[in-house]
Amino acid sequence: MSKKKKIFLPKDRYFGPTGGRKKMALILYQKIADLPLVCPHGHVDPRLFADPDYRFGNPAELLIVPDHYIFRMLYSQGVALEDLGIPRRDGGPVETDPRQIWQRFADHFHLFRGTPTGLWLVNELHDVFGVDIKLTGDSAQDVYDQVAAKLAQDDFTPRALFKRFKIEVLCTTDAATDPLAHHQAIRRSGWAGRILPTFRPDAVVNIDTVGWGDNIAALSEVSGVAIDGYGTFIQALENRRAFFKSMGATATDHAALTPYTAELSPQAADAIFQRALRGEAAAADAAQFTGHMLLEMARMSIEDGLVMQLHPGSRRDHNHSLFERFGRDMGADIPQATEYTHNLRPLLNKYGTDSRLTLVLFTLDETTYSRELAPLAGHYPALRLGPPWWFFDSWNGMEHYFNQVIETAGLYNTAGFNDDTRAYPSIPARHDMWRRAAVNWLADLVVRGMLDEEDAVEMATELAYGLAKRTYKL
Amino acid sequence: MSKKKKIFLPKDRYFGPTGGRKKMALILYQKIADLPLVCPHGHVDPRLFADPDYRFGNPAELLIVPDHYIFRMLYSQGVALEDLGIPRRDGGPVETDPRQIWQRFADHFHLFRGTPTGLWLVNELHDVFGVDIKLTGDSAQDVYDQVAAKLAQDDFTPRALFKRFKIEVLCTTDAATDPLAHHQAIRRSGWAGRILPTFRPDAVVNIDTVGWGDNIAALSEVSGVAIDGYGTFIQALENRRAFFKSMGATATDHAALTPYTAELSPQAADAIFQRALRGEAAAADAAQFTGHMLLEMARMSIEDGLVMQLHPGSRRDHNHSLFERFGRDMGADIPQATEYTHNLRPLLNKYGTDSRLTLVLFTLDETTYSRELAPLAGHYPALRLGPPWWFFDSWNGMEHYFNQVIETAGLYNTAGFNDDTRAYPSIPARHDMWRRAAVNWLADLVVRGMLDEEDAVEMATELAYGLAKRTYKL
Amino acid sequence: MSKKKKIFLPKDRYFGPTGGRKKMALILYQKIADLPLVCPHGHVDPRLFADPDYRFGNPAELLIVPDHYIFRMLYSQGVALEDLGIPRRDGGPVETDPRQIWQRFADHFHLFRGTPTGLWLVNELHDVFGVDIKLTGDSAQDVYDQVAAKLAQDDFTPRALFKRFKIEVLCTTDAATDPLAHHQAIRRSGWAGRILPTFRPDAVVNIDTVGWGDNIAALSEVSGVAIDGYGTFIQALENRRAFFKSMGATATDHAALTPYTAELSPQAADAIFQRALRGEAAAADAAQFTGHMLLEMARMSIEDGLVMQLHPGSRRDHNHSLFERFGRDMGADIPQATEYTHNLRPLLNKYGTDSRLTLVLFTLDETTYSRELAPLAGHYPALRLGPPWWFFDSWNGMEHYFNQVIETAGLYNTAGFNDDTRAYPSIPARHDMWRRAAVNWLADLVVRGMLDEEDAVEMATELAYGLAKRTYKL
Repeated sequence: MSKKKKIFLPKDRYFGPTGGRKKMALILYQKIADLPLVCPHGHVDPRLFADPDYRFGNPAELLIVPDHYIFRMLYSQGVALEDLGIPRRDGGPVETDPRQIWQRFADHFHLFRGTPTGLWLVNELHDVFGVDIKLTGDSAQDVYDQVAAKLAQDDFTPRALFKRFKIEVLCTTDAATDPLAHHQAIRRSGWAGRILPTFRPDAVVNIDTVGWGDNIAALSEVSGVAIDGYGTFIQALENRRAFFKSMGATATDHAALTPYTAELSPQAADAIFQRALRGEAAAADAAQFTGHMLLEMARMSIEDGLVMQLHPGSRRDHNHSLFERFGRDMGADIPQATEYTHNLRPLLNKYGTDSRLTLVLFTLDETTYSRELAPLAGHYPALRLGPPWWFFDSWNGMEHYFNQVIETAGLYNTAGFNDDTRAYPSIPARHDMWRRAAVNWLADLVVRGMLDEEDAVEMATELAYGLAKRTYKL
Repeated sequence: MSKKKKIFLPKDRYFGPTGGRKKMALILYQKIADLPLVCPHGHVDPRLFADPDYRFGNPAELLIVPDHYIFRMLYSQGVALEDLGIPRRDGGPVETDPRQIWQRFADHFHLFRGTPTGLWLVNELHDVFGVDIKLTGDSAQDVYDQVAAKLAQDDFTPRALFKRFKIEVLCTTDAATDPLAHHQAIRRSGWAGRILPTFRPDAVVNIDTVGWGDNIAALSEVSGVAIDGYGTFIQALENRRAFFKSMGATATDHAALTPYTAELSPQAADAIFQRALRGEAAAADAAQFTGHMLLEMARMSIEDGLVMQLHPGSRRDHNHSLFERFGRDMGADIPQATEYTHNLRPLLNKYGTDSRLTLVLFTLDETTYSRELAPLAGHYPALRLGPPWWFFDSWNGMEHYFNQVIETAGLYNTAGFNDDTRAYPSIPARHDMWRRAAVNWLADLVVRGMLDEEDAVEMATELAYGLAKRTYKL
Repeated sequence: MSKKKKIFLPKDRYFGPTGGRKKMALILYQKIADLPLVCPHGHVDPRLFADPDYRFGNPAELLIVPDHYIFRMLYSQGVALEDLGIPRRDGGPVETDPRQIWQRFADHFHLFRGTPTGLWLVNELHDVFGVDIKLTGDSAQDVYDQVAAKLAQDDFTPRALFKRFKIEVLCTTDAATDPLAHHQAIRRSGWAGRILPTFRPDAVVNIDTVGWGDNIAALSEVSGVAIDGYGTFIQALENRRAFFKSMGATATDHAALTPYTAELSPQAADAIFQRALRGEAAAADAAQFTGHMLLEMARMSIEDGLVMQLHPGSRRDHNHSLFERFGRDMGADIPQATEYTHNLRPLLNKYGTDSRLTLVLFTLDETTYSRELAPLAGHYPALRLGPPWWFFDSWNGMEHYFNQVIETAGLYNTAGFNDDTRAYPSIPARHDMWRRAAVNWLADLVVRGMLDEEDAVEMATELAYGLAKRTYKL
């Protein structure tokens, strides 16, 4: 392999494989490629936008250390996380030389062949940082130099990129106890960029969360409601939702191991809450309480209009020793089979036909697309299906989604795209993959005579822009 | 969009996407396109054929009000069923103007883009009613006029369409207690069309059916067997099967929440039956009794030769308030994960190798195709796999079926196609989609060199005609 | 159909369907088509190689009687196994005329249209036996004659074919109690072919195995360790592993109904073992003991370096009466839904990050590819994913695998191919299908601009050769 092999990203990349479908996909793509990006769900740190002059660090700090999509793949092939500069919980020594980290990453870049992470990176390096040579062990330091040089430029601040990326609105994900100081700073700064918070109360709602007691104390503090039972807990949550809404939030987000829902009486809910306060709650208590709170959250959404998102099915921190050493979000969250038809029935029977509710469902179990989620979304007025989530936010994951969801749910019961990412510079590449997957799917319907081109353009526009904007009330 | 945009349905529609496969698919299609339709399973009302001069009502009454595939999609987007003229159980007011209903439907027709329902409708309007303009809110009343005009013609009676559709035989689905009056009238009329009943005893076999006690009373009455226990219940069922067979039936059909089977002693079966008669049966009783009765039904099929069909896995009436207001079959039946390997073992170990039994299995859980159903059908002589059922009776559903079933089960352990529809005028469009999906799948094997053209033509003929006819002994 | 229709196997068969992808696939294929075959897992009888002059019997004895892939399909369509010469356990009469058996097989060869078994057979008859006419009832005896004539030639001994097939190494599967007499004879003969044993201890580890007590007695005998409890049982196993390793083994293999793992204390393990010795072990004992032994086997693999394979999820001998009449491996093993995320967690938390362990996972439940197995293999350093197993070792099965595994796990966390077959002459055809599926998948990525040709060639080489060789330390 030559040290500096040029890469070439053709305009019609990903489409096809060949022939009329590839041509039609490009025609459709050109209608939507320049639409603004609507980012209704993600994990970008709002701090990036609070300071107008915020600068990214070095390439490793920007692209590798915070991205578990990347370092977990190297870990799976025997690279120690310490050698990639991942901070240890005990503060012990880890690699600090960014060029070394970058070199190790580049030496293993072949691991990402055929993966979405690899495609995003190539596109991001090319489109955002102007890198047009193939990343290998040999070219590693050259690429590092190019990226580092760009990061030093004035037009590489997060705010400058926000404009360049044509982001219309970007929603962050924020704990219920978060005072939203960065969001407040953004507002005060007078900057026109729309960075909106999202209310995520898992750490106070799921009573088996590590540190739950401290979280409740923090919630009391930040809400000004002294939480001494279930009733005051609900008051504090409503208080925080109102605050988030006043800061521009249009949505909430909820994680749970399963989508189990079941209503408790206030007395039963309080009994569990009291056991939790005393540190005596059992595992079954936690499952029941979360199941009940999902109903409560739907009730609050009906009252305050915040769109509700549900992300179930991830067994977090599967690798215990890794968790002990490095903490959360280390690429060790593993999906599990998920059941929606029975689990969601209590919630849907109570609130699923209420026109004031929008509940966006996600899954890590593709088998539920055609079996449960599409039939549910194709029936209940309150439901919308979110795009493929994590592990499935890939070319094949998107193809599966279109082919398994739309025939039953219809396009208009889906929620468009969200990038769900911590990796801010990867946002355009992620939306681009979705847009390409969408038009490639539509092009297939057109060349088969299942759809006319006029309708296909409308659908492509909805997928790229309209559905996300309307679903999330942006 | 112009008010009257012409639609064009190319001869090679759906095939492809492009190139040699599309051409080969058309070659194969032309060999089978004109074969008669064999319809071994469906829900067309036999009343249509009992009166030689039966006329359909208006377009809304024909195409929208009875078709939950259609109105559930509008409901999912906030259209009230009352506004579509769906009758309420309490007889309360609903829309009665068919032009208003049709207009609402047309205003929302974009919801069906990319769905099989949309494709069927376009084809049905075009081929049956001669509509060659695109259905939109603008063109709605024009299309209404065209359809209404056709319905007024003499050659649009059900019997005339039966001939025009080239239906060789059409099986209805009929309760065990049904006296088959319409079927008797058809026979008496001397008409040559073959309309055969199918014995469906769910309402008397599943003891948790709402109104089960009344159903048993009706079964006593119609069979002339005074049912006072399990033994007389079995007698009454055998009596009814004999009557159905005398009326031309070749098959039975069974629905169950799961395919659980397990044999009870006659004493244990009677104990449950007595509890059910007293209204004291528990949920577990119902599951056990249904599981036992599936074995009994297989036993009876071996004795009387009726082909047995099993349709498990639908959680009926998921939306309780909708059920209360409108009743059954409102588009709120949701699939659930289904297990066949262990559940069917008792039945298959007792009867699965008996050459006199044909048991046709269906599923709403596509994951079972390759994991359980194809291996089972590729082993047990009595088993045949039915075509994709409901939600999966779509282009992608058929592609998944061919790609996940045939490699293991082989083509000759499948049961051909059935349209399973209430919507009589949609029958040709449904068979046409299946035939197109079949030849497109075969064309892929031919152009890849996995199959020669001679074999492909034989297989296409089997899929379009032979398998259904032989499996159902028609 | 003419009696002797010529068959034609194009060089680019299976690729495509058409256009640039087909061309690119052929380009890639030509780079790897001649690589040697690495066969790390299979069921070929080592006896074939122990005697330099071993000769195969007649065509039926070679191709039909031992191959449950074939005879189960005929059985499913009503052909009695007796009529195919399958030996009965009671020694009762079965067909003995190989020409009759062959004729029955050929009369039903249409059943294999569109199946991998059919493709393997056509390729095997063509490439190994030089048959270039289509196998039908009419041509059956001609084909028989051709195959029989070849079998009589000197260059059709197993050793001669080994060279002609370019097999670099072939691993057999051998019971823990097997003295490996054939492997010893091969060694003594001085023949250069590498035939290596694999340690498969299911029959002594799974205490619910029929005849377990006898197996333990045999294990005592062969190991020279008097097994009187859990401690001596472990000693005997370690003893046998050391012997297998001394005979060239590089791997072990384990079957279990589920991949459940959980560690027992030595006391608890011994208590179960003692109950098993007394014939008093319950079903739950067996599940617990197997789950514990999987951990023990991982521990031993870390110590002795043998690669560990796990094949869970098959409900063996589903058809009880068939088992009674003919015994095991009669095509009546049916997959069941399988759960890995929770079941494997104890093992992976204890040993999954140990660089000395390689654990290769297989599945009969394709839904676990993207949901559980790829995320697990994309995280834990010890894990590798085996290729599609049985029922899924087909064209579509391989396509599903590539499309559902690689995006998340990456190519380098997979284990290459193994043929897993008893049918020695089918080995080249099976590897060829895998190689064709691999390059066709890669060609798609290349023509879509997701991969460059240079990387694609490297990946194709890994898939055809490198991954299997390195994973299994061959």
